[in-house]
Amino acid sequence: MRYLLYYWPEIQGRGEFIRLALEDAGADYVDVLRLSGKASFSNYPDLKRAPYAPPYLVAGRLVLSQTANILQYLGPRLCLAPKDEAGRLWVNQLQLTIADWLAEVHDTHHPIGSGRYYEEQRPEAKRRTADFLAVRLPKYLDYYDGVLRRAERGSAGGGYLLGKACSYADLSLFQMVAGLRYAFPLAFGRLEQRHARIVGVHDRVAARPRLAAYLASRGRVPFNLRGIFRHYPELDSTRKKSKKT
Amino acid sequence: MRYLLYYWPEIQGRGEFIRLALEDAGADYVDVLRLSGKASFSNYPDLKRAPYAPPYLVAGRLVLSQTANILQYLGPRLCLAPKDEAGRLWVNQLQLTIADWLAEVHDTHHPIGSGRYYEEQRPEAKRRTADFLAVRLPKYLDYYDGVLRRAERGSAGGGYLLGKACSYADLSLFQMVAGLRYAFPLAFGRLEQRHARIVGVHDRVAARPRLAAYLASRGRVPFNLRGIFRHYPELDSTRKKSKKT
Repeated sequence: MRYLLYYWPEIQGRGEFIRLALEDAGADYVDVLRLSGKASFSNYPDLKRAPYAPPYLVAGRLVLSQTANILQYLGPRLCLAPKDEAGRLWVNQLQLTIADWLAEVHDTHHPIGSGRYYEEQRPEAKRRTADFLAVRLPKYLDYYDGVLRRAERGSAGGGYLLGKACSYADLSLFQMVAGLRYAFPLAFGRLEQRHARIVGVHDRVAARPRLAAYLASRGRVPFNLRGIFRHYPELDSTRKKSKKT
Repeated sequence: MRYLLYYWPEIQGRGEFIRLALEDAGADYVDVLRLSGKASFSNYPDLKRAPYAPPYLVAGRLVLSQTANILQYLGPRLCLAPKDEAGRLWVNQLQLTIADWLAEVHDTHHPIGSGRYYEEQRPEAKRRTADFLAVRLPKYLDYYDGVLRRAERGSAGGGYLLGKACSYADLSLFQMVAGLRYAFPLAFGRLEQRHARIVGVHDRVAARPRLAAYLASRGRVPFNLRGIFRHYPELDSTRKKSKKT
């Protein structure tokens, strides 16, 4: 099966969570809009089951959207999710909580409107980011740390969210760490020191042979100021500073 | 199978999307925290697959969280989703876009921090709500209207998102309409006039016998100022007014 991925070619964004799974599995896929600037999302105007927003994945006659939905479809096929129903529901649940977390990252720089410029909402972005770094981000980190701690107790040993086997949710957790390091080097730099298990997942994922090659290649779009993770120095802060805001 | 639902007893919130599916199907379930104020979420402290946040559904040995994940599990079992994979992915996709939409509704009154009081973020809430009502809400409505329009063309006829058969995504779309009518009677009152298909789903869902009985009962928690849909008159506006903001 050759998969077709449709996503904005100039950012990592939500599409990167799909790219990581396809790359890690060595899947046969085409990142359509990066290959040809001319192709567009409007290739599917008459689609009965039309998506709301990219990323889209075309898999034979299926056209799927919503990152977690695409990953749920790909997971067992790419050996990045268990085959049993309970296991698949659990990975999906972990992925959906990452989706919530990611949406909150987006809203740190766009708390008023996603269609407006950051510069139009900078004061609000400062307030929202301070709350995110002080309250929300630690809560998400503590949660995934707990999942990893409990997975270690399993008979097969730990290292990933499900124990010994790497799932697509681990690739997504890697992406969260990579993105947060780019966006908030000061604030996240402090926080990650207390979350060695999460950093461990990041490092193990980054060292997987196919992903290591991908991450070092031109295929990996660099983080930039148009994506979901954005580095605005005025939003980043050590935790102490954010309290004064 | 007797299901146990754990959710905040005093609000509709995300739990209501689960309640609607269970009620519509006449499923055997206990809304645990409403039955006994003493029971708490902490009944599952040693759970290996611990949820991040309520709602939780206990189904035999499974403990599930994330609304869309729970509904995906329940869907085929309650005859509120197709059995085939493509159909299930499509309903899940529709549900995930409703989840995004719902999160945006929440952020209209909490654009800075979900743990802070509304009164601490009222100016930001006004700006975010104006953007939501003018830009985001029409986009979601247009999308679901298009889904319904395309479903009508199917051989089996329309009326619901998948055509003739009601799915859990239709129950959720009903809930969005009901909530938006409560929260933004002026602004949504104008918008819904242009979306007869969506209002049609609302009306058909509300008339389903088991749901009609539930909605008229004390089981249905009234909308209030602690839930996701909140009515603050200063945030509501006709579209014209919101442009002046």
